[in-house]
Amino acid sequence: MEISSTQNPNIKAVVKLKKRRERDAQSLFVVEGNRELNRALESGWELIEFYSAPSLFSDEVADRSFPLDAPPADKSYVCTKEVFKKISIRENPDGILGVFKQKNLLLSEIKLSEAPLLLVCDHIEKPGNLGAMLRTADAAGVDAVIVCDAQTDMYNPNVVRASMGALFMLPVILCESHELIPWLKQHHINILSTTPQSESLYCEKDLTKSTALVMGAEHEGLSEDWLQADMQQIKIPMLGSCDSLNVSNTSAIILYEAIRQRNRDR
Amino acid sequence: MEISSTQNPNIKAVVKLKKRRERDAQSLFVVEGNRELNRALESGWELIEFYSAPSLFSDEVADRSFPLDAPPADKSYVCTKEVFKKISIRENPDGILGVFKQKNLLLSEIKLSEAPLLLVCDHIEKPGNLGAMLRTADAAGVDAVIVCDAQTDMYNPNVVRASMGALFMLPVILCESHELIPWLKQHHINILSTTPQSESLYCEKDLTKSTALVMGAEHEGLSEDWLQADMQQIKIPMLGSCDSLNVSNTSAIILYEAIRQRNRDR
Repeated sequence: MEISSTQNPNIKAVVKLKKRRERDAQSLFVVEGNRELNRALESGWELIEFYSAPSLFSDEVADRSFPLDAPPADKSYVCTKEVFKKISIRENPDGILGVFKQKNLLLSEIKLSEAPLLLVCDHIEKPGNLGAMLRTADAAGVDAVIVCDAQTDMYNPNVVRASMGALFMLPVILCESHELIPWLKQHHINILSTTPQSESLYCEKDLTKSTALVMGAEHEGLSEDWLQADMQQIKIPMLGSCDSLNVSNTSAIILYEAIRQRNRDR
Repeated sequence: MEISSTQNPNIKAVVKLKKRRERDAQSLFVVEGNRELNRALESGWELIEFYSAPSLFSDEVADRSFPLDAPPADKSYVCTKEVFKKISIRENPDGILGVFKQKNLLLSEIKLSEAPLLLVCDHIEKPGNLGAMLRTADAAGVDAVIVCDAQTDMYNPNVVRASMGALFMLPVILCESHELIPWLKQHHINILSTTPQSESLYCEKDLTKSTALVMGAEHEGLSEDWLQADMQQIKIPMLGSCDSLNVSNTSAIILYEAIRQRNRDR
C-alpha cells in the first residue's frame, strides 16, 4: 500500500534522521539517489529500509539500472511524490532512498600501507566541503579519512551527496583529536598542516613518507590540541590578493602533489 | 531615518538584485560583509548604495575596521535588523551591504603575460563551485578567469561570497564560447581540458606554455562548441572508486601544477 501521509510513523522516523542527534542515537543514516544507493550496496553497507516514489523516477531509475530490483518486501515502502519530497533533501529527487546502518570503524581497524597517506578533517563545518574532501581523498587513493572532532558528521545527507558516495568506498573514521594524535605518533606518521606563515612550500616537502594531512575548520583553523602537537607546517603559494584557499581545494592540491611524488618515485 | 519596512522601495529594489535578470538589466550587484566590501572598495569598484543595520554589526564592523566610515550620506541607509535580513543572503549577517556597479570587461581588455595561464569556467552551475574556482584562480595568480556561457554569473551573491571577494581583484570576463574559442586560437593559447579517457597525465603535460584550462559543467561536462575545438585532453589519476572529482578541486590541482612547473622552470 502506498504511503500518502507525511504523518506516517515511518516517514516521520526517516525525516528525523536529518538531525545528527537522531542519526547518532539510532546508528542509522539516509542515502538518496541512484548512484549513491548503488555505491552503498555494492560496498556492502546494510540496507534497513527502502523508499520509492515511482512518479519521481528518473529514466535511469525507471530502467531499473539499480541493484534494487527486489529489496525485501518487508522493508520496502512506496510513497506518493509529496511524501517522498518530505524525506528527500534534493530539489529534483530521483525517487529512491534507503535507510542504512552506520559502520563505525575504529582507528585500530585502518589497514595502513607501508607509507600511509591520510587525510584528517578537523572540525570541518560545511557539508559541501567535507563531501568534496571525501571524494577527492577517495580519488587520490588515501589509506583512510579521519573525521576528527566532527562539527558535521559524514552521515549528514549533504555530505553523502557532495561525496558522491565516496564515503561508502574508503575507510572513514570518526574520532576525537585526543585519541588520534597519540595514535599518529605511535605509528610514526608525520603530521602536516598548512599555514601561510610557513617557510616550506608544499611541493618542496617530501610527501612520499608516512603523512597525515590535517585540515582545520573553515574559519577557525586547527584546534588547540593540534597546535600543541608536533606538526610540520607547509604553505601553498598565494600569488593573488586572497590570503587563503577553500579547505577542499587545499586538500586536493596537497594530496595530488603527494600522489605525483609517489608515482614519480616508483 | 531608519528603514523599518520591507516594503520600502529601496529595499524592494535591492531584494530584486538577487535575480540575475535584474542584475543584468541594471548592471548592478550586491556585496555583503566586511571582508568582501573592503575588497571591492580597495579594488576600485563603484559603490552605488550602502545599507547597514547597527544591531547586527559584528565586532569587526562595530570597531569600524572597514573603510566605510563616511559613505556619502545621500547613498547611505540604516535599516532595522528585520529589514536587513530581507536583503541579506547570510544566516548570520554582519550588518553591512553595498550595491555596486558591474564592470563588464571584454576579452580585448585582458592584459596577457608572456605565457598566460587562464581559467575558463564553461557553464558552471553551482555558485559555490564558481566562487571557489575564482578564489583558487586568484591565489594561483592566473592572468584572468573567463566565465563562458554562464549558467550562474559571477555577480550571483553566493558566488561573491564563496569567492571571498576574489572576483574584485582579478580580471573576470563574461563571454560566449563562440567569441572565446577564436580569441584563444588567435592568441596561440593551448586549450586544455580534462577527460578520464585521456592517455596524458596532467603532471606530465608542459603547463609552462600559454594555457587556457577549460572546466565544463558539473554534470554535462563541456559543451559541443568546445568538443569541436582543437583541444588537448589531460587526465587526473583516479586511484579510488570514484570516476570524477569536484570541478573546483580539479581546477585547483591543475592550476597549482602549472604554478609548480612555472616556478621550477624559473
